[in-house]
Amino acid sequence: METHLLKRFVVGAPMPLSLARHERLSKKVALAVFASDALSSTAYATEEILRVLILAGSAALGLAIWVAVAIALLLIVVAISYQQTIHAYPNGGGSYIVARVNLGPTPGLVAAASLMIDYVLTVAVSVAAGVAAITSAFPALFPYRVTLGVACIAVIAFGNLRGVRESGRIFAVPTYLFIFTFGALVLTGLIRWALGDVQPLTETVVHPATTLSGEVQPLTETVVHPATTFSGFLVLRAFASGCTAMTGMEAISNGVPAFKEPEAHNAAVTSRWMAGILAVLFLGLTLLAQAYRVVPVEHETVVSMLGRALFGRGAFYYLIQAATALILILAANTSFAGFPRLASLLSQDRYAPRQFAKRGDRLVFSNGIVILGAFAALLIIAFRGDTHALIPLYAVGVFISFTLSQAGMVRHWYRERGAGWRWRLLINGAGALLTGVVTLVIAVTKFTHGAWIVVLLVPILVLMFQTVNRHYALVADQLSLEGYGGPPPIRHTVLVPIGDVHRGVVAAVQYAKLLSPEAKAVYVETDPAATRALEEKWIKWGMGVPLVILTSPYRSVLTPLLEYIDHLQEEQGEVRRVVTVVLPEFIPHRWWQHLLHNQTALLIKGALLFRKDVIVTDVPYHLAH
Amino acid sequence: METHLLKRFVVGAPMPLSLARHERLSKKVALAVFASDALSSTAYATEEILRVLILAGSAALGLAIWVAVAIALLLIVVAISYQQTIHAYPNGGGSYIVARVNLGPTPGLVAAASLMIDYVLTVAVSVAAGVAAITSAFPALFPYRVTLGVACIAVIAFGNLRGVRESGRIFAVPTYLFIFTFGALVLTGLIRWALGDVQPLTETVVHPATTLSGEVQPLTETVVHPATTFSGFLVLRAFASGCTAMTGMEAISNGVPAFKEPEAHNAAVTSRWMAGILAVLFLGLTLLAQAYRVVPVEHETVVSMLGRALFGRGAFYYLIQAATALILILAANTSFAGFPRLASLLSQDRYAPRQFAKRGDRLVFSNGIVILGAFAALLIIAFRGDTHALIPLYAVGVFISFTLSQAGMVRHWYRERGAGWRWRLLINGAGALLTGVVTLVIAVTKFTHGAWIVVLLVPILVLMFQTVNRHYALVADQLSLEGYGGPPPIRHTVLVPIGDVHRGVVAAVQYAKLLSPEAKAVYVETDPAATRALEEKWIKWGMGVPLVILTSPYRSVLTPLLEYIDHLQEEQGEVRRVVTVVLPEFIPHRWWQHLLHNQTALLIKGALLFRKDVIVTDVPYHLAH
Repeated sequence: METHLLKRFVVGAPMPLSLARHERLSKKVALAVFASDALSSTAYATEEILRVLILAGSAALGLAIWVAVAIALLLIVVAISYQQTIHAYPNGGGSYIVARVNLGPTPGLVAAASLMIDYVLTVAVSVAAGVAAITSAFPALFPYRVTLGVACIAVIAFGNLRGVRESGRIFAVPTYLFIFTFGALVLTGLIRWALGDVQPLTETVVHPATTLSGEVQPLTETVVHPATTFSGFLVLRAFASGCTAMTGMEAISNGVPAFKEPEAHNAAVTSRWMAGILAVLFLGLTLLAQAYRVVPVEHETVVSMLGRALFGRGAFYYLIQAATALILILAANTSFAGFPRLASLLSQDRYAPRQFAKRGDRLVFSNGIVILGAFAALLIIAFRGDTHALIPLYAVGVFISFTLSQAGMVRHWYRERGAGWRWRLLINGAGALLTGVVTLVIAVTKFTHGAWIVVLLVPILVLMFQTVNRHYALVADQLSLEGYGGPPPIRHTVLVPIGDVHRGVVAAVQYAKLLSPEAKAVYVETDPAATRALEEKWIKWGMGVPLVILTSPYRSVLTPLLEYIDHLQEEQGEVRRVVTVVLPEFIPHRWWQHLLHNQTALLIKGALLFRKDVIVTDVPYHLAH
Repeated sequence: METHLLKRFVVGAPMPLSLARHERLSKKVALAVFASDALSSTAYATEEILRVLILAGSAALGLAIWVAVAIALLLIVVAISYQQTIHAYPNGGGSYIVARVNLGPTPGLVAAASLMIDYVLTVAVSVAAGVAAITSAFPALFPYRVTLGVACIAVIAFGNLRGVRESGRIFAVPTYLFIFTFGALVLTGLIRWALGDVQPLTETVVHPATTLSGEVQPLTETVVHPATTFSGFLVLRAFASGCTAMTGMEAISNGVPAFKEPEAHNAAVTSRWMAGILAVLFLGLTLLAQAYRVVPVEHETVVSMLGRALFGRGAFYYLIQAATALILILAANTSFAGFPRLASLLSQDRYAPRQFAKRGDRLVFSNGIVILGAFAALLIIAFRGDTHALIPLYAVGVFISFTLSQAGMVRHWYRERGAGWRWRLLINGAGALLTGVVTLVIAVTKFTHGAWIVVLLVPILVLMFQTVNRHYALVADQLSLEGYGGPPPIRHTVLVPIGDVHRGVVAAVQYAKLLSPEAKAVYVETDPAATRALEEKWIKWGMGVPLVILTSPYRSVLTPLLEYIDHLQEEQGEVRRVVTVVLPEFIPHRWWQHLLHNQTALLIKGALLFRKDVIVTDVPYHLAH
């Protein structure tokens, strides 16, 4: 099957995703588009199980396959659960929507917060794992993995900022290449295992790590002695780590409207294929790792070790590594679509700043992309580009959103009570229960390893969403015209504070006269001699506008002006008096020249910024040099 | 003498410097006020000579006293030269003024640039040396010297920012304490030397350094082997390093008007006292260092070693260290008066931004203080709080300004040709020649050690001053009313862009009606259905102001608005049309709420910022929650 698909999509004419916004996706293209996130996690999930089990010594590694089987079973339950969501929400059933509609606003926000954290972690973990695939093939690059990771995020973010549209080819090539190469790896490995052609890998493995620089410490010997005692808790932690294999499974249920008709049916079929391929690759790799007695090391991924063992450091080995890196980068890229879309949904519901609300406006998109890229890059830096260190943070968010989505579906069936609702409720109920328990398992077993950050962050984000929402509601209330009696009558005075008489001032006075026949110029006297010279100039250039001279015993320009405005507004009686302060302001020719001007204007603006019934207007005077 | 003065100023009623702005300073108080900078340099000058000579081995240290004698002779010449400046410029003869008046604007600016660099370095070097005095007494503090230095600068800067006026006591106590303790140190040391009661110090010295943490390497053994070959160049470098003893000598000539009458006479007498005390302390300390065979180490100052050797780690030793630290911090503090004053002079002459021009205004002072503090702190950080590393940058600027000041005086006498002008010209000529040669010596011998930074920075600063000056001249020219025919007639249109109708919009429309009876509201239609609803609201709340509806096929709000303004301004014919754009804008209750609003207003403002004949006015609508 893989070779056929590879040919079909590498050679055949690809369908650009930009068109897909108008045309619909076939199942094969949709699999490439939506499955990269889920499938890519097989690149690290097996290894993460082994990394936990090894703490109890190499003997404990034998448990990996049973952990993987448990995860695969969970995966099937979740996949079946999501089939139902696809049919129930053909317009796109993201966890946020399903939870909000069925369970209420707060569960919806919890799902949204979990998903947002999940998007950031998908970028960080996928890029870290993608870089690990590269540094496994080229160990000399290992010391630069943080730089590589951040650069990678920057490239993806800039690509998205520039509005590069992903075409079908960009998705299809890496996804099917990955399915093909990993499929070949698993198949070849299992056949050779069946034929008894297996050499334990551990010795070979130590070699590349020790040839590296002095800072590198080989993590393993042929037999690893237990660092911790074996326990059920450890197995649960291994299970929790392996659950990262399931991240990205919800992607298809979000994108049902992108499928060709009948959308829900095609989406459900594609979803089954995705789950099937995911389960096969994950189980196959775990079995293989066990068969070849792979012991995880720091400087090479388990997949790379298996590839080397089976194919040597030849072309096919490098093809596996390239396919792994590519699909992982692709997985990161999908978050750059998902995160801004979710932010936009939250914004439409007034839970996030309005800047995220409008799609299609380039500026608005930028906000979500920049924020996602920045947080993911920070994670890469903070965790030194180490996939293994990031894993405990991952999966918690994913499973919270799984649980809420399934629980929402339970409520959905209970409300609707359509044909076979009990049966459907039972399926989603089982899904909700299982994923709920797994969420707890993940949160507890990985709590001290980093999951606490997410456990803390989710309520903080929910509070932020609610605060934003409350603010928008209060503003709407304050601006509402319902029951509004109209604005009270006002009177108007225009003042032009001047420090000198020059062309800029003349232009400002001319403008002030347009605004009001009552306009006055105001001069704060600090030196009586200067006042006389100014008054003479004013006779010639004042255009008949009266000049008010305020004295300032302490050389402050601001205080007398503010007192004068107070005085004007006090004598208003019944009617409010609005004072417009017209400020002559240069617009210098070059940016640095701003530093040399406008200090008094700035001071006045600052002092008047929050005063009621005072409006400040700059009259720009453009300088040519 | 010292004990008398100490009693007089510690016990007697001190004269606050804040009063000194009205009252005049006696010679004794003036010595305390103006000499701290110059005298404080004896705390490190000797050591800097030794640090250079030691590079040729401990035997070369014997040359230190001859280097010191040469510097003392130079000091006397410069002191005599400055006597003449004091008499010639009784209103204050800073290098900038003397050079500008006599030699022209560019030499004046070179002097100003050198002085500004000098002020920054005075702060950095004095604080670094003051911290060294503290860490010598308390070696455990040595690792925190950068933090201590930056904190020290911050405290001085904040003190000056808050406008704390230095009182006579603040100056008098440390200055006379320093003269007394250093005098006692030199006297005791020389007497014991004369009595033959001298033990070489080097062994004792190594001890505290080696007791420190592992990162500390003792710099010395009893006999230091040469790291470099002995040469005339090295002696010149030692001389150049020792010339830092002369920094601050110009202080009195800047401050003549602060003295009691007869000002010039009293200033000259005080200046002689200062030079005398400086020469005695500097020569005495150098002689002592040689007598006690002090070899400089990294973690303790030479003064501290001498103090320990003569008095043990007793009360008097700690008093010496305290006096050293205090006078050095005081020296740093004087720059916080000098730098803003020089900046203000430059600003009055339009060579520096106007913000520096006005004295007495707190904000204006702040600029100079903040800039000085920031640059000095950066130096402390960049040079890791190491006096020794900063020294090569110091003194270049000081000697450039010495040279220009003396050269200016030569020109002064040649122009004036008063009684005995030839003799006076000769004195200042000798001073100019000597300091000029020394400037070259310092620049060349320390060029690669850091002096190149200053050699580069002086012309850059001069260029900046000139650029600022040219800009102000151009602006004055463009604003001049001479030959100005008055502004052309204008017509006026007021527009209120609206996106919705609410109380804020109603307030803005009411205001726009005040500005012009021709005011119009403008709505950019992105959805025809919304337009109909808006038009209905407008009938009720539009106050008779016409509503212009612009269509936008591409959902952009900005483009149709800009095109409409273009269209209005095109149809103007002969008369310019000024368009006032009135923007309804919320003023949120809390700062973070700004992030949630005003995006469209900001966009419109940004797009209109540099358009001619368009004036943007915000009508604030204050939100209560």
